[in-house]
Amino acid sequence: MAKSTIKRSRKTGLPPGSLVHIGRERSEKTRVSVVDYTQDTFEEREIRSLDELAPYGGKPSVTWIDVVGIHEPDLIGQIGCQFAIHPLLMEDIMNTTQRPKIDDLGKYICVILKVIAFDEASMELRVEQLSLVFSDDIVLSFQESDSGIFRPLRERIRSSLGKARRMGTDYLAYALLDAVVDHYFVVMEKMGEKIDSLEDEVVANPKRETLRSVQHIRDEILLVRRAVWPLREVISLLERAESPLIDKTTAIYFRDVYEHTIQVMDTVDTYRDILSGMFDIYLSSVSNRLNEVMKVLTIIATIFMPLTFIAGVYGMNFEFMPGLKSEYGFWVMCLFMLLVFCGMFLYFRKRKWI
Amino acid sequence: MAKSTIKRSRKTGLPPGSLVHIGRERSEKTRVSVVDYTQDTFEEREIRSLDELAPYGGKPSVTWIDVVGIHEPDLIGQIGCQFAIHPLLMEDIMNTTQRPKIDDLGKYICVILKVIAFDEASMELRVEQLSLVFSDDIVLSFQESDSGIFRPLRERIRSSLGKARRMGTDYLAYALLDAVVDHYFVVMEKMGEKIDSLEDEVVANPKRETLRSVQHIRDEILLVRRAVWPLREVISLLERAESPLIDKTTAIYFRDVYEHTIQVMDTVDTYRDILSGMFDIYLSSVSNRLNEVMKVLTIIATIFMPLTFIAGVYGMNFEFMPGLKSEYGFWVMCLFMLLVFCGMFLYFRKRKWI
Amino acid sequence: MAKSTIKRSRKTGLPPGSLVHIGRERSEKTRVSVVDYTQDTFEEREIRSLDELAPYGGKPSVTWIDVVGIHEPDLIGQIGCQFAIHPLLMEDIMNTTQRPKIDDLGKYICVILKVIAFDEASMELRVEQLSLVFSDDIVLSFQESDSGIFRPLRERIRSSLGKARRMGTDYLAYALLDAVVDHYFVVMEKMGEKIDSLEDEVVANPKRETLRSVQHIRDEILLVRRAVWPLREVISLLERAESPLIDKTTAIYFRDVYEHTIQVMDTVDTYRDILSGMFDIYLSSVSNRLNEVMKVLTIIATIFMPLTFIAGVYGMNFEFMPGLKSEYGFWVMCLFMLLVFCGMFLYFRKRKWI
Amino acid sequence: MAKSTIKRSRKTGLPPGSLVHIGRERSEKTRVSVVDYTQDTFEEREIRSLDELAPYGGKPSVTWIDVVGIHEPDLIGQIGCQFAIHPLLMEDIMNTTQRPKIDDLGKYICVILKVIAFDEASMELRVEQLSLVFSDDIVLSFQESDSGIFRPLRERIRSSLGKARRMGTDYLAYALLDAVVDHYFVVMEKMGEKIDSLEDEVVANPKRETLRSVQHIRDEILLVRRAVWPLREVISLLERAESPLIDKTTAIYFRDVYEHTIQVMDTVDTYRDILSGMFDIYLSSVSNRLNEVMKVLTIIATIFMPLTFIAGVYGMNFEFMPGLKSEYGFWVMCLFMLLVFCGMFLYFRKRKWI
Amino acid sequence: MAKSTIKRSRKTGLPPGSLVHIGRERSEKTRVSVVDYTQDTFEEREIRSLDELAPYGGKPSVTWIDVVGIHEPDLIGQIGCQFAIHPLLMEDIMNTTQRPKIDDLGKYICVILKVIAFDEASMELRVEQLSLVFSDDIVLSFQESDSGIFRPLRERIRSSLGKARRMGTDYLAYALLDAVVDHYFVVMEKMGEKIDSLEDEVVANPKRETLRSVQHIRDEILLVRRAVWPLREVISLLERAESPLIDKTTAIYFRDVYEHTIQVMDTVDTYRDILSGMFDIYLSSVSNRLNEVMKVLTIIATIFMPLTFIAGVYGMNFEFMPGLKSEYGFWVMCLFMLLVFCGMFLYFRKRKWI
Repeated sequence: MAKSTIKRSRKTGLPPGSLVHIGRERSEKTRVSVVDYTQDTFEEREIRSLDELAPYGGKPSVTWIDVVGIHEPDLIGQIGCQFAIHPLLMEDIMNTTQRPKIDDLGKYICVILKVIAFDEASMELRVEQLSLVFSDDIVLSFQESDSGIFRPLRERIRSSLGKARRMGTDYLAYALLDAVVDHYFVVMEKMGEKIDSLEDEVVANPKRETLRSVQHIRDEILLVRRAVWPLREVISLLERAESPLIDKTTAIYFRDVYEHTIQVMDTVDTYRDILSGMFDIYLSSVSNRLNEVMKVLTIIATIFMPLTFIAGVYGMNFEFMPGLKSEYGFWVMCLFMLLVFCGMFLYFRKRKWI
Repeated sequence: MAKSTIKRSRKTGLPPGSLVHIGRERSEKTRVSVVDYTQDTFEEREIRSLDELAPYGGKPSVTWIDVVGIHEPDLIGQIGCQFAIHPLLMEDIMNTTQRPKIDDLGKYICVILKVIAFDEASMELRVEQLSLVFSDDIVLSFQESDSGIFRPLRERIRSSLGKARRMGTDYLAYALLDAVVDHYFVVMEKMGEKIDSLEDEVVANPKRETLRSVQHIRDEILLVRRAVWPLREVISLLERAESPLIDKTTAIYFRDVYEHTIQVMDTVDTYRDILSGMFDIYLSSVSNRLNEVMKVLTIIATIFMPLTFIAGVYGMNFEFMPGLKSEYGFWVMCLFMLLVFCGMFLYFRKRKWI
Repeated sequence: MAKSTIKRSRKTGLPPGSLVHIGRERSEKTRVSVVDYTQDTFEEREIRSLDELAPYGGKPSVTWIDVVGIHEPDLIGQIGCQFAIHPLLMEDIMNTTQRPKIDDLGKYICVILKVIAFDEASMELRVEQLSLVFSDDIVLSFQESDSGIFRPLRERIRSSLGKARRMGTDYLAYALLDAVVDHYFVVMEKMGEKIDSLEDEVVANPKRETLRSVQHIRDEILLVRRAVWPLREVISLLERAESPLIDKTTAIYFRDVYEHTIQVMDTVDTYRDILSGMFDIYLSSVSNRLNEVMKVLTIIATIFMPLTFIAGVYGMNFEFMPGLKSEYGFWVMCLFMLLVFCGMFLYFRKRKWI
Repeated sequence: MAKSTIKRSRKTGLPPGSLVHIGRERSEKTRVSVVDYTQDTFEEREIRSLDELAPYGGKPSVTWIDVVGIHEPDLIGQIGCQFAIHPLLMEDIMNTTQRPKIDDLGKYICVILKVIAFDEASMELRVEQLSLVFSDDIVLSFQESDSGIFRPLRERIRSSLGKARRMGTDYLAYALLDAVVDHYFVVMEKMGEKIDSLEDEVVANPKRETLRSVQHIRDEILLVRRAVWPLREVISLLERAESPLIDKTTAIYFRDVYEHTIQVMDTVDTYRDILSGMFDIYLSSVSNRLNEVMKVLTIIATIFMPLTFIAGVYGMNFEFMPGLKSEYGFWVMCLFMLLVFCGMFLYFRKRKWI
Repeated sequence: MAKSTIKRSRKTGLPPGSLVHIGRERSEKTRVSVVDYTQDTFEEREIRSLDELAPYGGKPSVTWIDVVGIHEPDLIGQIGCQFAIHPLLMEDIMNTTQRPKIDDLGKYICVILKVIAFDEASMELRVEQLSLVFSDDIVLSFQESDSGIFRPLRERIRSSLGKARRMGTDYLAYALLDAVVDHYFVVMEKMGEKIDSLEDEVVANPKRETLRSVQHIRDEILLVRRAVWPLREVISLLERAESPLIDKTTAIYFRDVYEHTIQVMDTVDTYRDILSGMFDIYLSSVSNRLNEVMKVLTIIATIFMPLTFIAGVYGMNFEFMPGLKSEYGFWVMCLFMLLVFCGMFLYFRKRKWI
C-alpha cells in the first residue's frame, strides 16, 4: 500500500492554485459528455470542443457534464474557468491523493470522494477519485477513468424511470453519490468472500502465505476505511441541507446515503475485528504445531535413549558380564527392552501425549 | 460471521425506494394479524386480504398490525401505500442488513431494531430484524419470522393486565421494544453459561477446539454488540419525548428500556474482557505445556547421554583398557553409572524440575 | 465472575413495574429500623409492622428508614406504596443487577449504587446493592444485607458529633454515600496488598496458579470499576445541586465525594496497568525459563554427542584400526576426549551460556 | 508502586472535615516561615508561634506563608482557623493521597498539586504534595518537606529581580506553580537518561533484570502521568482568569505554565511509547536467542546422529561384514564419515544456519 | 530519540521571560534578511546592524524579516524589543523544545511550528523550529538554520508570480506555513520509500537489524506526529479568521493548508499501522523459523535414534544372537534398517513435514 508511485511532492514549491495532475499515469484522452434534461426533454451527447458547453450555462434544465480523465491540466483548467470554479478547488480535483471532503462556496458545492472498485483480474482494489461540483442548474463530475458505476443511473434518466427526471441538481448529485456508496457494498461483499476463504485456510492449513494474505487484506480494508470515514462527515453536512442548493425533500435521500456509509463503516470495523482474530488464531496454531513437533521429538528421545543406553551397556567389552555366555541372555535382554518400551508407552498414554 | 449469503449488492443500480427483500431466503407465507383495543374493547384476528385493514385507519382505538414475514415485496409495498409510509422506509424495512435506527417523520415514527434469539438446536444466535412504525392510532410491526417474544405482551393485552390497555400507541411501542430488550438478557445469560463452561475447559484441558469456540463466541458477542450499540441512541431519542406522538408519562418507561440497553452493553463489554482474558490464559498454557515437554526431554537427554557415552567408552575395542579382564570391572562400572544417574537426579531435584 | 446464578431472565415477559427479587437467594427476615432526629431530639427503633412508619410521613424532623433485606416483594412493595415511590423504581430497587444510577423525580431523588466489601473468609469481593431514596424529610435506604458500614455514621448521629444533626436529609444522603465511597478505599487497599504479594510471586517463582490469581484479581478490579465508573456521573449530578432537595452548602460535600470516586477510579486504573504489566512479566519469564531449559539440553547434547561418536568409532569392529593393540591407545583416546570436552566447555563460556 | 504504606483507610468512619495526616510518617517539626513584601519593602522571618501570623492578616502587602510539614493536625488546624479556610480543604491538604485539583471558594483559591523530585541516593522518584491557598493579600503554601525548589524564587523576590516584587498574590502563586512544573522537566530529563541507558542494554545484552528495570521505570512514568494529567485542567482553569483574584495580565503567565504541563505530558507519552517498544524488542530478542540455541542443537544433532549411527552399524558383531578384515576398511569408513560431515556442513551453509 | 542533548532544565529557576537558547549547539552567526514589497515595488537585502530594521516599522508595504539562527539571546532580545513582542513569546521562540502553538495577542499573531527535513547524508530526520510573528505590515520568521524551503516562495515574490505580491501579511504568513506543510509530504514520501524497502526485507529475510530499523522508523514517525498533530489546531484557528489580521479571502487558503495537515496525519497513521503490522509479521516469521528448525531436528532424531538403537542391540556382546554367524546376517540387518528408514520417511511425508 505504501508502494505508491504517486508523488505528491511534485507540487512542492509551486504557488497555490497551480494545476498539476497527481495520480496514476494515464494516456487515454479525456472524454467529456453532457446529459441535459427536464421532466419532458432529454438530450445526451459527447463533447468534441469545450465551446459546445457554453449554451448549457444559463439553461433552466438540469445539465450533467461528465468529465472522464483528469490528467490534462489545460483542459481541466479551461472547464474550471468556464464555470468560474475557485482555482484551489480545481487543484484539488486534479490531485488524487485528496481526502474525501466537501466545500460549500455559496454558488456551488464541491464534493470530493473515492470510487472503490474490485479489479477481478488482479484481485486487487482500485481506488479512484470522483469530484462533484453542483450549482442550481449544472452538475459537473470528474472521474479518473470510466468506472461504469453511473451507467444504471444514466439509463434511468434516459428512460425517465423513478424520480430522477422530476427533480433538480441536488437530486442528481445525490444519485451520483448513492451510486458510489452502493458500490462500496459490492466491494465489501467481495472482501467478505476473500475473508471467508482465508478463514477456512487459517483454521485448516495455515502457511506463511496465509499470513501475508491476511496482512494484505487488512491493508485493503484500511484503504476502504480511509475512503469512507471522512465521507460520513461530508454527507452528514449535505443531509443538514443548510445550503439553499439542497431542497428539504432531497435531504431525506442524503440521510439514506448517510446511513449507508455508516453501515459500510460497521462492516469495515467488523472485518477488522475478524482479521485480527484470524491473526491470533494463526499465531496460536503456529505455537500448537511447535508443541506437537516437540512432543514427537520428546517421545522418540525418551523411548530410545534409555534403550540405546542399555544396549550400550552390554556392548562394553568387559570379559565378565552376567549372561554373556548364556544361550538365553540375548532374549532375556530383548524382553527387558520390550518391557522398558511398553512402560514408556503407557506413561505417555497416561499423560495423553499419544 | 462473514459467511453471510445475504447479498446487499442485489440492490446496486436500482432507483431509491425499490422494494427488494434482502435477507435470509424464506418460503413461508406472510401472515398479518390485527389486535385492536381500547380500555374496554378488545378484538384480535388474522387478516386474509389487506382490504380488511382499511377500517382500522381512522379508528380512535389502538390498532396493532403485526406482519410476520417481510419477503414479499408486493404485499409489503401495499401495506406501505395503505398507511402512507415513505418508500425509503419501506425499502429499509425489507432490508435486513439495516442498522438499528429511528426515523421521526412527524406523523409517524419508525424504529428498526434487531431481535436476537438463541437457537437451542444449532447452539447459535439468530438475529432477525423488527421494524416498528407507530402513529397516534396505529402500531405496525414487521418481523422476519414469528419469534414468539410478543406472546406474553399479547396475553397481557388480551387479559387487560397491567397498564397495557389503558394507554396509547406510544406505550404499545414501548412494550414491544421492552419485550425485545428483555429478550437480550435471556440471550446474554445463555452466552454467560457457554462462557463459563469454556472457562473451565481453558483452565483444565485447553485444546485447539477450545480456542475456536472462544473465537466463535467472541464473534457472537460482536453480533450482539452491533445490534445493541446503536439501539442506545435510538431509545435515548424516544426517551426525550420530543415528538408529540410520545406522552411525557410514557417517557419514563422508555428511560427504563434505555437503562436496560446500557446494562446489556455493560454485560457485552464484560464478556469481551473475559474472553480476551481466556485467550491470554490459553496462550500462556500452551507455552507452559511446551515448557513441560521440553523439561522431560532435557531430563531424559541429560541423564542418558552421559551414561551412553560412558558405556560407549568401554565399548571401544582397545586391547588394553583398565578393568576389562577383572571379574568385578562390569559391576564397578555399573555402580559408577548409578552414581552419575543419582547425581543428575539430585541436580534436577535442586532445580525443581522434577 | 460470569458464574452468577442471578437470573435476570426471570423477569422476561412480566409487565413493567412487577416486583421480582433478582439477586442472591436469602433466607433472613427483612429488618426495618428508624432513626428520627432534629438538632435537639433523637429517636431510634426497630420496626415490627410497617404501620409504625406512618407517623414519620409528614414530620419536620429528619427520618432515616433503613431497610435491610430486599428479597420480600410484598414488604418492599408496601413500603413503596406508603411513600408513593414510582413502581419502576421499586422494581429497580429489588433488582440487584442494576447499574449505579440516579433518578430525580421532583419530590424525591433515588440513587442506586453498590456497596463493595472484602470478605476475609473467602478472600473474595462481595458486591451488594444500596438504594437511597430521599425527599425533604425522609431518607429511605435499602440494603441487601447488613454490611455494617453505616454504624459509625449512626453512632455520630446518636452522639450528635460533627454536623450530622444540624443538617437536613440531603446531608444525611451525602453521609451515607460518603460511607460507601470511603469503604471503597478500604477494599482497594486490600486489593493493593494482594497485588503486592502477587507481584513478588510473579518475579520470584511464577507458577500457573499465579497467572490464575492475576486473572482473578483482574476480574475483581473490573467488578469495582463497573461499580464506581457510573457512580461518578451520579454524584456529579448531585453536586450540581439543581434539585431543590439539595442545599448549596451541601453541594460542596457532594463535590468531596465526587473527588473521592475519581480517586478510586485512578487507583483502579493504576492497578489494571500494574496487573497487565505482571501478565507481561509472567509471559516473558515463561519464555526465559524455556530458554534456560533449552540451553541445558543443548549444552549436554553438544558435549556428549561428539564424544559418543568418537567412542562409537573405536567401537567399530575393523581389525585394523590405529592404536588398537597399543598399550597407551586407550589413554591417548581418553585424553583426546577430554580435550574435546574442554574445548566445548570453553566455547560455551565464551558464548556466556554457562 | 502499589507498595504504599500510606493507609487512607484510617479515615474511614470519621466525620467529614476531620484532620488526619495521611502520608509518609515524619518526625521533623513543622516549620513556618513568612515572606512579606511590596515593591519597596521586604521582610522575611521564621515563625515560632502562630500568633505572630496575626498582623499579616489585613496588610496590603503580599504575604507568603510557607508551611513545611503537614503531619501535625493541631498546628495545621490552627492555621486553617486563622485564615478561615473550609475544613474540607484543610482535610485535603493533610491527605497526601489527594489528586491534583483546584477549588475556587470565592475569597480564596486552593490548588493542590504534586512536587516530583528525583532522589539521587535511591535512584527513585519522590512525590510530595504541595497545597497553595491564595487570597488577594496572602499566599499559603503547604509542603510535606523542604524540597528546595522555591529557593531561586525566594532569592529573586529578596533581590527584587524580574517582575516578582511588582505584582500581586496571583503572580506569586503563578511563580510557585511555575517552579514546580519547571522541576518536572528536570525529572523527565533524568528519566530520559535512565531510558537511554536501558535502551542500550536491551539491544546489547538483555537480561531479566533489564525487563524489571523497564517495568520499574514504566511505573514511575505512570506516577508522573498521574501527577501531571489532572494539573492541566487545574491550570487551564486559572488561565481563564474567571476569578477576580487573578489579573488579566497574569493570565498569560498561567497560559505559559499550561503549555509547559502539556509539554511534560507529551514527553511522558513519548517515553511510554519508547518503553513499550523496548518491551517488544526484549521479547523478540528472547525469541531470537531461543532460535539461535535451537540452531546450535539442531546442527550438532544433525551432524553427529547419522555419524554415530554409521559407527554403530560397524560396531555390530556380525561375523561377515564387508571390509572388516581389510587393512583399509577403517580408513575408507573414516573417509565416508568425513564426506557425510562435509555434506551436512554444506547443507547448513546453504540454509544460512552457519 | 530520547538521546537528546537538549537540556531544557537549564532554564529551571530563572524568572519568566529570561532569554536562554535551548536547542542544538550552533556556531554560525545569525543572519537577518529583509524582503519588502508592494504590488509594484520590491526590495531585498541582508541586514548588518539591527538599526537598519527601523525604517520598515511603519511602512504600508509588506515587510518580511527572516532571522536565520536563534542562538544569540542578545540579538533575538533586541529584535523582540524593536517590534514590541511579549518577553514570554521571545523566550518560547528561543526554546526549540516548544510544541507547535499559536498565540493571538491582538496586534500580532505568533505561530510556532516545526520544519522537518530528511537529511540524505545521515538518513535521519532533522526537526527544526520555525516561529512566525505577523502584524498588519510585518512578518517576522525565526529559523534555527537555513532549511532552504522558503527559496521558491522568495523567488515567486521576486518575480511577482501568482498572488504573492498582490496580498497582505496574512497571505505571506500562509505562504510560509504552506511551504512548511508541503515539505512534510516530501518527508513522508521518503519515509514511505524506507518503509517499502523494510517491508520487503521483513518478508524475505528478517534479521535482528530489521527489527531495529522498524523500531527506529516508528520513532521517527512519532516525531512527525508530534510536530503535525498540534499544528492542526493551530491552523484551524487561523482558518476561522477571527482576528482582524486575517482577511476572509485568505481564510480559504488557510483551509487548504489545514486539509494538507490532516492528510499528513492520515499518512502518519497509515504508516504506523503498516509498521505495527510489520512487527507482527516479524514476530510470526521468527516463530515460523523456530518451527522449521525444530522440524529438522525432530526428523533427524526420529530417524536415527531407532536405527542407532538397532545397531546398538547387535553391538551387544552376547555370544548367542540370531544371525551373528550367518553370512547374510549383516545384509538382512541393513535391509531391515532401510525399511525402518523408509517407514519413517513416509510417515513424515504423510504429516507434510518434508
